[in-house]
Amino acid sequence: MSLKAISSKDAASLDKDLMSIGGWSLDQLMELAGLSVSQAVWRVHPLSAGKNVLVVCGPGNNGGDGLVAARHLAQYGYTPSVYYPKEGKNELYQRLKTQLHNLSVPFVPDFTEALKSTNFIVDAIFGFSFGGPLREPFPSIISQIESTSVPVLSVDAPSSWDIESGPPKEGPGAKFMPQTLISLTAPKPCVKYYQGRHFLGGRFLTKEILEKYGLDCPEYPGIDQIVEVGVNTEGRL
Amino acid sequence: MSLKAISSKDAASLDKDLMSIGGWSLDQLMELAGLSVSQAVWRVHPLSAGKNVLVVCGPGNNGGDGLVAARHLAQYGYTPSVYYPKEGKNELYQRLKTQLHNLSVPFVPDFTEALKSTNFIVDAIFGFSFGGPLREPFPSIISQIESTSVPVLSVDAPSSWDIESGPPKEGPGAKFMPQTLISLTAPKPCVKYYQGRHFLGGRFLTKEILEKYGLDCPEYPGIDQIVEVGVNTEGRL
Repeated sequence: MSLKAISSKDAASLDKDLMSIGGWSLDQLMELAGLSVSQAVWRVHPLSAGKNVLVVCGPGNNGGDGLVAARHLAQYGYTPSVYYPKEGKNELYQRLKTQLHNLSVPFVPDFTEALKSTNFIVDAIFGFSFGGPLREPFPSIISQIESTSVPVLSVDAPSSWDIESGPPKEGPGAKFMPQTLISLTAPKPCVKYYQGRHFLGGRFLTKEILEKYGLDCPEYPGIDQIVEVGVNTEGRL
Repeated sequence: MSLKAISSKDAASLDKDLMSIGGWSLDQLMELAGLSVSQAVWRVHPLSAGKNVLVVCGPGNNGGDGLVAARHLAQYGYTPSVYYPKEGKNELYQRLKTQLHNLSVPFVPDFTEALKSTNFIVDAIFGFSFGGPLREPFPSIISQIESTSVPVLSVDAPSSWDIESGPPKEGPGAKFMPQTLISLTAPKPCVKYYQGRHFLGGRFLTKEILEKYGLDCPEYPGIDQIVEVGVNTEGRL
């Protein structure tokens, strides 16, 4: 299945539409986005594959989706940890942190140390608004995620990739290829450089929004908040 | 499975805890509550049983859960309608209405008429804060829901029932027995008068909250937002 991609600019505009004429709050959208991320983790990395999931969160909404996903993963029986080196300022992120604290989900201070004992990584560092360059501590984090043998699921885009032009030509992320990608609401243009399992999440769009942005609406099965849209085999790395 | 019940007073206090020390917003809690309601509908009334679902919403948070459920049902492929005769004042309800309008979910003005073409009813009229008496137009609505042959799922409590002492001794609701009940966070005391399929929803409690209120935590299967806690056969009606 080849889905139409949405540009960074249009993705920002779509979010704005949802939160104005759409009647959505960021709390609601992030709840469903993070829920879909947690369902993708469950699909590709069941509990039997190892319960330790390290969720790496960036300072923006991509990181917020990761925080929500970590909460759901804890409820499913995983033992998630969160690495959140640059906290976002939105009060919502603080509340999501509180929710995780109340579930005894640890916020780990040392990524390298946490990496040693994890079975799976959720890359919720940067999403569609990433414009580079990587700032500390992320170059080192991306390098480690890039070279680890632990499987990685990226949220919306592999972090460090340009949303339009894909992986950087050199430096951290140049060879980063997560095993799984979940695109939220629609794939971003950089998906054409991606090879691996690909899911779509964000089951809240309306026909009108899909039409306005010229997006496809693959059929979500049953009550799932995700749909697998195929294994991309044509990444151009 | 017999679960401990939570009193109306404690349920209100629990909600308050979630939204203060818990870090939750009403938007988030209602999203997950409504999602769990929609999953229970999917379980007891699959699409093949008829897509027309009439969601009857009261003026408070129970009605809000119904509005969220209606949205998810629309995404699952049902054709829900909403009857919402006394709208709540919270701005969240207005936004939930907007979300439903954008999905072309109709708000129907005439319950009796809507009842004729529906395959299933979601009773989201009153929840744990109901203290009676029924005010117009609800006595007539409850009477019709009570006597219809269309299957009904009640959210948190069969509407018109006293949260502690169950069905009213006479008048509308005295013989109301929905086929399905979904209790949110924990059963209310009136569950002892209930006969039928019984689900629990609200997969967001922490160990601390469960302990504070002396509640059980049945194991939710997989990534489900609901767990069936058995068929109550001992209703004392």
